Amino acid sequence: MAGLQHLVTLTTDFGLNDHYVGSMKGVIRKINPEAQIEDICSAVQSFDVLDGALTIAAAYNYYPANTVHVVVIDPGVGTARRPIVATTTNHTFVAPDNGVLSLVYEREERVSVREITAEHYFLQPVSATFHGRDIFAAVAGWLSKGVEVGKFGEEITDYVRFAAPKPKLVGDRLFRGVVLKVDKFGNMITNFSQHEVPFLFAGNPPPFKILVGKTEITTVRPNYSAGSPGEVFGIIGSMGFLEIAANRGSAARALGADKGTDVGVMLEEAVKDSG
Amino acid sequence: MAGLQHLVTLTTDFGLNDHYVGSMKGVIRKINPEAQIEDICSAVQSFDVLDGALTIAAAYNYYPANTVHVVVIDPGVGTARRPIVATTTNHTFVAPDNGVLSLVYEREERVSVREITAEHYFLQPVSATFHGRDIFAAVAGWLSKGVEVGKFGEEITDYVRFAAPKPKLVGDRLFRGVVLKVDKFGNMITNFSQHEVPFLFAGNPPPFKILVGKTEITTVRPNYSAGSPGEVFGIIGSMGFLEIAANRGSAARALGADKGTDVGVMLEEAVKDSG
Amino acid sequence: MAGLQHLVTLTTDFGLNDHYVGSMKGVIRKINPEAQIEDICSAVQSFDVLDGALTIAAAYNYYPANTVHVVVIDPGVGTARRPIVATTTNHTFVAPDNGVLSLVYEREERVSVREITAEHYFLQPVSATFHGRDIFAAVAGWLSKGVEVGKFGEEITDYVRFAAPKPKLVGDRLFRGVVLKVDKFGNMITNFSQHEVPFLFAGNPPPFKILVGKTEITTVRPNYSAGSPGEVFGIIGSMGFLEIAANRGSAARALGADKGTDVGVMLEEAVKDSG
Repeated sequence: MAGLQHLVTLTTDFGLNDHYVGSMKGVIRKINPEAQIEDICSAVQSFDVLDGALTIAAAYNYYPANTVHVVVIDPGVGTARRPIVATTTNHTFVAPDNGVLSLVYEREERVSVREITAEHYFLQPVSATFHGRDIFAAVAGWLSKGVEVGKFGEEITDYVRFAAPKPKLVGDRLFRGVVLKVDKFGNMITNFSQHEVPFLFAGNPPPFKILVGKTEITTVRPNYSAGSPGEVFGIIGSMGFLEIAANRGSAARALGADKGTDVGVMLEEAVKDSG
Repeated sequence: MAGLQHLVTLTTDFGLNDHYVGSMKGVIRKINPEAQIEDICSAVQSFDVLDGALTIAAAYNYYPANTVHVVVIDPGVGTARRPIVATTTNHTFVAPDNGVLSLVYEREERVSVREITAEHYFLQPVSATFHGRDIFAAVAGWLSKGVEVGKFGEEITDYVRFAAPKPKLVGDRLFRGVVLKVDKFGNMITNFSQHEVPFLFAGNPPPFKILVGKTEITTVRPNYSAGSPGEVFGIIGSMGFLEIAANRGSAARALGADKGTDVGVMLEEAVKDSG
Repeated sequence: MAGLQHLVTLTTDFGLNDHYVGSMKGVIRKINPEAQIEDICSAVQSFDVLDGALTIAAAYNYYPANTVHVVVIDPGVGTARRPIVATTTNHTFVAPDNGVLSLVYEREERVSVREITAEHYFLQPVSATFHGRDIFAAVAGWLSKGVEVGKFGEEITDYVRFAAPKPKLVGDRLFRGVVLKVDKFGNMITNFSQHEVPFLFAGNPPPFKILVGKTEITTVRPNYSAGSPGEVFGIIGSMGFLEIAANRGSAARALGADKGTDVGVMLEEAVKDSG
């Protein structure tokens, strides 16, 4: 049991070229020498709160109960934006209150969010530019050591949350969506998920085309290597979204696409009234 | 002893910008909270099974006995290629059966390979695109927790293995080889090793030239900084291969070379009958 | 207590694409299965001893007492440069004797440096090109296991240390300094610190301009997002240096600046005699 409650994960945009993440790990270990730390991702796109939100939402639920997840994508560091600790049924999150936990809130039935105000848990003096070290890592250290969440501050209900961009039905046959992110392989992860377009994820989807710029994609493949070399195709990805991929190549490069690129899904016949 | 059998390493091409490796770590930790996880490399060249084979082969033997090594370079994910668990005298490997363990097989006297068929050890539902998380990490978690290797499936003998490209003697004076990889410093790691060209690794090698494109390299240096600035030279590297390097600079950039570039070794006199 | 003395950190320029750091971790774990390893940074600029010195100096003091810090930026690997173990009041460092610990020496009152000569602690055979694995990781493994520092070799006093470049007063109004490094966000970290230009760090600094090429910067902001979009400004950063930053953008790209770029601080009135 001991191992479980000492686990801390880090999701940040601090990158790998600097001391930032290394300093955070030291702070956690200094407060709680028994802490175990795992990097979920240190290279979230700089300043990109949505990219951070997608990253932590994709990973946290694979961790054991009672893990403390530190999520620091924090372009507003040093301003009045609040530091928060959020608890769900199984997990605890420490983050700035800028919406970076929005997709966690969306997936969880019970969420309790507290503003962190107990400054005696912070590293002193608190810098104006690196709360990842001075506030978030320090609080995570204490949480992993067993300090109760209530000690850090009062519950709030006006915490920041945003809805991830959802595909929209335009007319009766065209859904307009967007590329949420491009992964290391060049797979384009769109915002088409089972919730909004369940028919795409069904066993026998109706005929449709995926539109990216002037490219029309008409095939959905069951796995990456089912495509012929150079072919760009749709695929249901492991994050639960429609992806646009290529076999052993970068779909994003092939299509000149990037995060934010528009993606259409055009049905051959009008959408029926259903899910 | 406890520490030893709980150690899991990860070697993947999932990169550092996404949640992939972070999700795998969660899966391992959730199954075995006592697991200890170390990254060998998260940034193997995308889809490059040979690069993965070189990476794990260079590192695994430095780890303690009973380490579980997860190796996921898996362009065929979701196809009929098999998941396997391979055991050698001291180590256990979990990987797709695509040859990524070939250089481990080459170095080890005793290898037993099993097809992983015991699906109750997998995360359910198994995605079509991320077996690193749903199969390989899960199996590694159970292995690190002490589940016997025989529980995962039957031994097979027709597992995939390839021979790393070896230098060839052309005529009686020229060996033709290739650059296996370029490291972060720009050192070009060739496939000339002690096994094929023992005379290069001997104390007093015969006169020879290294040929890369139109460049002739005539010096072999004992260490990187023995070269003068800008000079490109040969060196016996820490992976056991002839490397082409420069002092505080990138030999690959200087020569316009990359993985796959041809490398010749031309002897002044014909090869004698020996090693 | 157990956790504390087993902690080893790694700061290297070996990068993330190769097996190098992964092999070092194996060596440490094989010697001391109870070791806990944290990466401070694996992507120090290649061959850049000053960048390594800045990185370890920024992070080490956040770690618990008795941590063993391995610092391998080692362009002279395989030459006569000595391997050393340095101890301060709370920390132990293992590194090549090339000045990479200079900024640690500068911050610590008590430093004892020993040349590592006890070759029976090395991995044998020692390669000519990868002492990070064969010497430094091995020694760190034994140190983390409790071997006394005196066992590794005799104390020396002629160890290599350099002074980090300091700003200089030119005339009576202009300080000339330099960009020490550019971080992942494009923040330019200069060498202006509280020690040399205390008035910049005071509550009510005298009027001054920051000069970078032809750009004159006249504002110092309390945090990154206090600037308007696109604005480049000065800020006191978390490493204790004056930084030049932009709100959600790269100041270095905006100014065409990089490590080594000259930075001036021009006071409106002559410097008074003070701190």
